Amino acid sequence: MHTLTDTPVQRLDQVLAAAEHAATVLEEGPVGLRVAGLRAIADVLDENVERLVTIAEAETNLPTGRLTGEVARTTGQQRLFAAGLEDGSWSDVIIDTADPDATPVPRPDLRRAQLPLGPVLVFAAGNFPFAFSVAGGDTAAALAAGCPVVVKAHPGHPETSRVTAELVASALADAGLPEGAFALIEGVEAGVTALQDRRIRAGGFTGSLSGGRALHDIARNRPDPIPFFAEMGSVNPVFVTTEAVRARGEEIVAGFTGSYTLGVGQFCTKPGLLFLPAGHGLEDRLVEAARGVAGGRMLDERIHATHADIRATLTGRPGVRTLVADTADADGLAGPALLATDVRSLLADADHLVTECFGPTSIIVEYDDMAEAVEAASALPGSLTATIHAEDGESGLTDLLRELRARAGRLVWNGWPTGVAVAPAMHHGGPYPATMDGAHTSVGLTAIRRFQRPVCYQDYPESLLPDVLKDENPQRVLRRVNGQLTTEDVRSVCGS
Amino acid sequence: MHTLTDTPVQRLDQVLAAAEHAATVLEEGPVGLRVAGLRAIADVLDENVERLVTIAEAETNLPTGRLTGEVARTTGQQRLFAAGLEDGSWSDVIIDTADPDATPVPRPDLRRAQLPLGPVLVFAAGNFPFAFSVAGGDTAAALAAGCPVVVKAHPGHPETSRVTAELVASALADAGLPEGAFALIEGVEAGVTALQDRRIRAGGFTGSLSGGRALHDIARNRPDPIPFFAEMGSVNPVFVTTEAVRARGEEIVAGFTGSYTLGVGQFCTKPGLLFLPAGHGLEDRLVEAARGVAGGRMLDERIHATHADIRATLTGRPGVRTLVADTADADGLAGPALLATDVRSLLADADHLVTECFGPTSIIVEYDDMAEAVEAASALPGSLTATIHAEDGESGLTDLLRELRARAGRLVWNGWPTGVAVAPAMHHGGPYPATMDGAHTSVGLTAIRRFQRPVCYQDYPESLLPDVLKDENPQRVLRRVNGQLTTEDVRSVCGS
Repeated sequence: MHTLTDTPVQRLDQVLAAAEHAATVLEEGPVGLRVAGLRAIADVLDENVERLVTIAEAETNLPTGRLTGEVARTTGQQRLFAAGLEDGSWSDVIIDTADPDATPVPRPDLRRAQLPLGPVLVFAAGNFPFAFSVAGGDTAAALAAGCPVVVKAHPGHPETSRVTAELVASALADAGLPEGAFALIEGVEAGVTALQDRRIRAGGFTGSLSGGRALHDIARNRPDPIPFFAEMGSVNPVFVTTEAVRARGEEIVAGFTGSYTLGVGQFCTKPGLLFLPAGHGLEDRLVEAARGVAGGRMLDERIHATHADIRATLTGRPGVRTLVADTADADGLAGPALLATDVRSLLADADHLVTECFGPTSIIVEYDDMAEAVEAASALPGSLTATIHAEDGESGLTDLLRELRARAGRLVWNGWPTGVAVAPAMHHGGPYPATMDGAHTSVGLTAIRRFQRPVCYQDYPESLLPDVLKDENPQRVLRRVNGQLTTEDVRSVCGS
Repeated sequence: MHTLTDTPVQRLDQVLAAAEHAATVLEEGPVGLRVAGLRAIADVLDENVERLVTIAEAETNLPTGRLTGEVARTTGQQRLFAAGLEDGSWSDVIIDTADPDATPVPRPDLRRAQLPLGPVLVFAAGNFPFAFSVAGGDTAAALAAGCPVVVKAHPGHPETSRVTAELVASALADAGLPEGAFALIEGVEAGVTALQDRRIRAGGFTGSLSGGRALHDIARNRPDPIPFFAEMGSVNPVFVTTEAVRARGEEIVAGFTGSYTLGVGQFCTKPGLLFLPAGHGLEDRLVEAARGVAGGRMLDERIHATHADIRATLTGRPGVRTLVADTADADGLAGPALLATDVRSLLADADHLVTECFGPTSIIVEYDDMAEAVEAASALPGSLTATIHAEDGESGLTDLLRELRARAGRLVWNGWPTGVAVAPAMHHGGPYPATMDGAHTSVGLTAIRRFQRPVCYQDYPESLLPDVLKDENPQRVLRRVNGQLTTEDVRSVCGS
């Protein structure tokens, strides 16, 4: 079995020096270089999908179909960013030409664009060996922003990480990107050392609350604090109304069971709390459906043990009934477990019960009426997602939605939170503890914004302006010039 | 003389409860309500400008002309946000309609918009009793985003704060905004208590590095960390080339002297370091110009004393010569002081010399050649601004600009950093220690983004979507629908 070895200090220094150099080349080079790089990564991963999946399967216990789909999702994400760069809105240009008559003071010529932050350190996730790892969303977003990427490999899939990194590095070199645009480092110590290095200008992370918070605190307590974007998972509450139970009870049982057991429950968006109206009558069917799902092997033994511990704690809390106890546990597999409680017990013991349990465990929470459902929603912590199953026009939905909207990044209607679509409008984020900064997403086109910083040029001559700010707009980027959105030359807009 | 009194705990709780209630009303109400509120604030301040200036003049030692201009700037800022809201791009809407044929998984209908974060706590600044205080930029940006505002008054101008707050509260009530949309609180204790309250969802601050950092740490170490945007000032380096000295030496002396002594040097953008080529020959004229500026009374005695302390420290450092020692100090006034050193001495003692000295003190730093100027630039900390005085086409400018761009939010060419234009393209921010988050600005239209958070609605029925996401787009907001920018109905774009 492969293991990681701590990247030696000297090698780490070389990596960071190369990244710093590459940052200038990427920032000042044409955007086409980034586009070519992203497409080259997508192509090389697609070409090597079988080899990659075989390696990842052995390391992660994840099945072939899931891994193959994950590679497709990863390369789709790289291509989404490439297409987004060509569209031009990524640079968010605002130009206000000089106005000597402005009051109370004359206005100089001001031109603002989003520029890259500099080298980004990405901490890869364990549960997505492709989509949130070496060539995953953080890497794609940072490269799209024009930032070199240093990935700290996840110990759960060392060989997958190394092979992916080799493919990425060689594809980027072939596409003409500078050495240092991408590198892999290994080991906790190397990761922390890099995070504290002045050459690293931002961090990205997907993983546990404790890990994300600890790394965030290191990043924010540097002599020069840097932004650290951590996506840390959540309880992803689902609320089902009486009308929905009546109209689609069977369908809801099947959908819920599929969602909380998908991938042995190892998704950030796994629904951990299912709110059902008291007297819902679905208990037998939920139990039956859970028993129909085979146990699976979790990502690694540590995750398996942690899941078993949290599940045991949940099971033993006052007011919690066990509907299905995992019977697969004995073989080292984890099968579904289903617990049940009510809103009063949940709220009285929220510190223990309202917590992410990474694995195929979920809690049914019975509520008496819509007012109690709204009360429960108002007591929940931040989540990546919150879901309502209801019939359009039912009363009380506005109040429920208001509480959920304040606490979640994505609001799902009559669907399930797992299966995050990679699309421009996706928001995969949410208030703490789902992430460290709910204003940002780690999936979708807007993920690029994490790794940018606006710079405003005042009265600069054309020769020293970056291309996106020059009068003539050689890349035909969409810009806001004196309030007007345009891809035209500044002079054709303001007539100066 | 007026002083502030700590807002009692019970009153603070009422303020926060009202703010929480108002948050829902503002978020769900029409955008026109926010527009009306911003315009009402602008109008009432303009109507009361004489009264306000009289009160502020007595409290801050700032002259009438400066204060009158500051009120105009403040109301211009409120109106800029109002106009920006009407334009619609503030909500940054992205809509991807459902695509059942998407791979690897079908895409649901996804609609993302920037929604308000909730109640914002604003810590008012001392040096701008209007533009960065009760009705200043943070307040305007937060209200524009749809967030209620609680302002913690600055002790430097208590009566100005109270009178402004009364005018703002009554103007907002008249414009139909809910009670709780705006409130003033007083005292450090009330400010810290509010910052730790779960109902406050973000913070804004303008002031010192120590104050901003301490409040930032409180906000980020809450059980539920919130964003805290602190603008903390900087050294604002200015580099002058040999060619510029030759072409415009007199003009540069006059401009620099005006800039570092403006408002008794009490601006975040005051140039603290002036890099001149060795043998520049401007020393006599710089000394003469400094001696020609009368001393002024600083904002308060504490600021006066702190400035005198830092100035004394700077004066006593090795390699630092005193060109002009403040002679006005004896009368409780502060006059210009000008020190001189060279790049080697500066870099050897950067911890002491490269630090903001809030007041009319600046250091001339001589460099031997462009390479040494670039080396100095590369060793500077983050700044709000960085300025170059040069002739277009001179060699070495690209290298110098590259280092400054990495370290500043606004790059000024042949101008002076003081006098921040309130315009959509303005960026008043910069890497730490200029701010706690260089991705954001506290001046200009994009300041609104600090107080927003994206939410994505998946497969929601029209009846439950916010107006900006409904098919028909009743407010005619500019949206990106399936990749296309449009103000039209979704159905007219995708034909579904």
